[in-house]
Amino acid sequence: MKERYFDHASTTYLDQRVLQTMLPFFSENFGNPSSFHAVGLKAKVAVTEARKKIAAILNSREEEIIFTSGGTESDNLALIGTIRAHSGRGKHVITSSIEHHAVLEPLLLLQKRGEIELTILPVDREGLVSVKDIETALRPDTILISIMFANNEIGTIQPIADIGRSLLNWKKQQATNFPYFHTDACQAAGVLDLDVEKLHVDLMTINGSKIYGPKGIGLLYIRRGTRIEPMMIGGGQERNLRSGTENTPGIIGLSTALALAQQEREQENARLIELRQRLIEGLLKIPKTRLNGHPTERLPNNVNISFLDIEGEAAVLYLDAEGIYVSTGSACASASLDPSHVILATGLSYEAAHGSLRFTLGKHTTDEDIDALISVMPNVVQKLRHMSPVNLDMKYFVK
Amino acid sequence: MKERYFDHASTTYLDQRVLQTMLPFFSENFGNPSSFHAVGLKAKVAVTEARKKIAAILNSREEEIIFTSGGTESDNLALIGTIRAHSGRGKHVITSSIEHHAVLEPLLLLQKRGEIELTILPVDREGLVSVKDIETALRPDTILISIMFANNEIGTIQPIADIGRSLLNWKKQQATNFPYFHTDACQAAGVLDLDVEKLHVDLMTINGSKIYGPKGIGLLYIRRGTRIEPMMIGGGQERNLRSGTENTPGIIGLSTALALAQQEREQENARLIELRQRLIEGLLKIPKTRLNGHPTERLPNNVNISFLDIEGEAAVLYLDAEGIYVSTGSACASASLDPSHVILATGLSYEAAHGSLRFTLGKHTTDEDIDALISVMPNVVQKLRHMSPVNLDMKYFVK
Repeated sequence: MKERYFDHASTTYLDQRVLQTMLPFFSENFGNPSSFHAVGLKAKVAVTEARKKIAAILNSREEEIIFTSGGTESDNLALIGTIRAHSGRGKHVITSSIEHHAVLEPLLLLQKRGEIELTILPVDREGLVSVKDIETALRPDTILISIMFANNEIGTIQPIADIGRSLLNWKKQQATNFPYFHTDACQAAGVLDLDVEKLHVDLMTINGSKIYGPKGIGLLYIRRGTRIEPMMIGGGQERNLRSGTENTPGIIGLSTALALAQQEREQENARLIELRQRLIEGLLKIPKTRLNGHPTERLPNNVNISFLDIEGEAAVLYLDAEGIYVSTGSACASASLDPSHVILATGLSYEAAHGSLRFTLGKHTTDEDIDALISVMPNVVQKLRHMSPVNLDMKYFVK
Repeated sequence: MKERYFDHASTTYLDQRVLQTMLPFFSENFGNPSSFHAVGLKAKVAVTEARKKIAAILNSREEEIIFTSGGTESDNLALIGTIRAHSGRGKHVITSSIEHHAVLEPLLLLQKRGEIELTILPVDREGLVSVKDIETALRPDTILISIMFANNEIGTIQPIADIGRSLLNWKKQQATNFPYFHTDACQAAGVLDLDVEKLHVDLMTINGSKIYGPKGIGLLYIRRGTRIEPMMIGGGQERNLRSGTENTPGIIGLSTALALAQQEREQENARLIELRQRLIEGLLKIPKTRLNGHPTERLPNNVNISFLDIEGEAAVLYLDAEGIYVSTGSACASASLDPSHVILATGLSYEAAHGSLRFTLGKHTTDEDIDALISVMPNVVQKLRHMSPVNLDMKYFVK
């Protein structure tokens, strides 16, 4: 049975070219970059080169890049770090209802503890946050805004540069440096332009495992002048902002993966958009279906469809039996069988959200993979609908 | 020039056998363990097997092992996590003056903020913490004790099992579950017996990069019933105690490295102790030298010597020129040219501490490496002493 992986937003395999650049740092050039001798120095030089390479891609300074263990740590550090460093300055934080758990959960916890006042902005039917809504929500004590660059479940791309410009204007008018602007770019990396000057962001999260890079490595871009409190405290690595022996192979792998993605993204995006559109058209021919997310402001590799009267998890298992791997949404341990908070936030009914499936394409996804999925899916849906106790009208799509 | 690496306590290379077990998890078996489909399940099974293997070595339950990004994160999580989870129960914490920065720095910070009252116990001339001192320091509001298993700089092995037994008695007498007992076993792993039942510890830190395993991976053993607050919040992985996509290759590598070390440690320890003793004897023939740390309760691979009237950093550079890689103490970015807090804590004078060098042996260290070091060292010391503006008596060794 040919296996077809449509879950690249959950995690990707390591690109062999990335692995090749990592291998020398496991056993030959294995030093601790903080050691004073030649073995340490060699590792230090490699880490510095990797940091430079990444800084060039982000159009940032080297010292604005802090390596972490992944997206969750970067998000947590960006949020908790700036909030705790500015508790005397203000308590108001703005975010959206469709952020990743690594953003929403820490913010909800800090809100519960009274450390912050949290405004969670809604999104429209297509998953877009409104720049106007952000402007309206701004307060003199707003210290931080966190809006993801592209959504991991429905693929909607937010107008980050517009939000950034609007915030710059507000800061000028108010003659203040606040709020700081954070974006989780884990899904955008390798696909969209990550130029922090164009985006006007102060903090940006990127990780390795979504861009054919290694797992267990990520970075946080921190604009010069942005004060944050570290989460990991110890030896003082990463300019005292992230203690712990540097994961040199991971850092090298992340920089290679990001550089490759940058080189190849235009061509690959065009290829993926074509496959994506064909898949969307094919699947929407099935009755009682709806595309989730934005029709055009959408990640090139993301298709998210709600099928009325089916259980998403059951469909995942049926497709799994056919060697086709998809998901119902984000892959999180806490993801119980509750429907996705993202899809509910776009106004879908609980029933329709339950029947949502995410198909995320990748470098190796072919025309034939798309054909196979389009041909299998109607039968899977039909079988599941036969078993379903309910039979809903199209009007049940929305709340 | 033959290179000779005597800095294994700083970091080790990845064992090729470990790498071989990791490789399939980069690009073939690359799934997200939290995904519901077959690709995710394969990764989940591998992570479960790795956890089982480690649990068997620690004589613990599987669910008591939480994977982290390394020693610093595990130490921080163990300390900050238990302190924050029990702030209503008590504020007193006990530690020693020779702990790793990843233990001391967060505790000093929490003390500064008034979140804890901290007792830092002294050590004797050989770097030993006294069980009696701990017993004397115990208070009804003591919630946590953190004493490292073996010191990374001077190699002294603490009587962890004795401390654990003493704490058990106290808990019985006081009819309480407190204090929790944490040990940083990063240097002990692969060398000493890690049986948590024999050690009577509630929390134990281990990392990959000191045991010929991968960098960027570690674990925290958390005894069932020990409440801790997570540091990383998000998708809820690792039983909600450590969110973030699992670093499957890292986890597999850590379990292989620990298993190999466990199998080979008796034979390897005997070999290393012989080399260590020969190196100690050889270096102590140089006038005005002193062995730091305990003569017998000492890591098999650790030699730490103070040479009066020399600058340790200068010696590191001179040896580096000969292809011999040693260190002055721990390899930490924050390690300024100030002498080691560990060596000062054993009562050495500032001057003698400044002339301390750490030589840490490894799997590939040979008799010939030891000979080379013993033959080179007198010249290096002599040259540096010629340049030294001071010429101290033996009495300057101690404060």
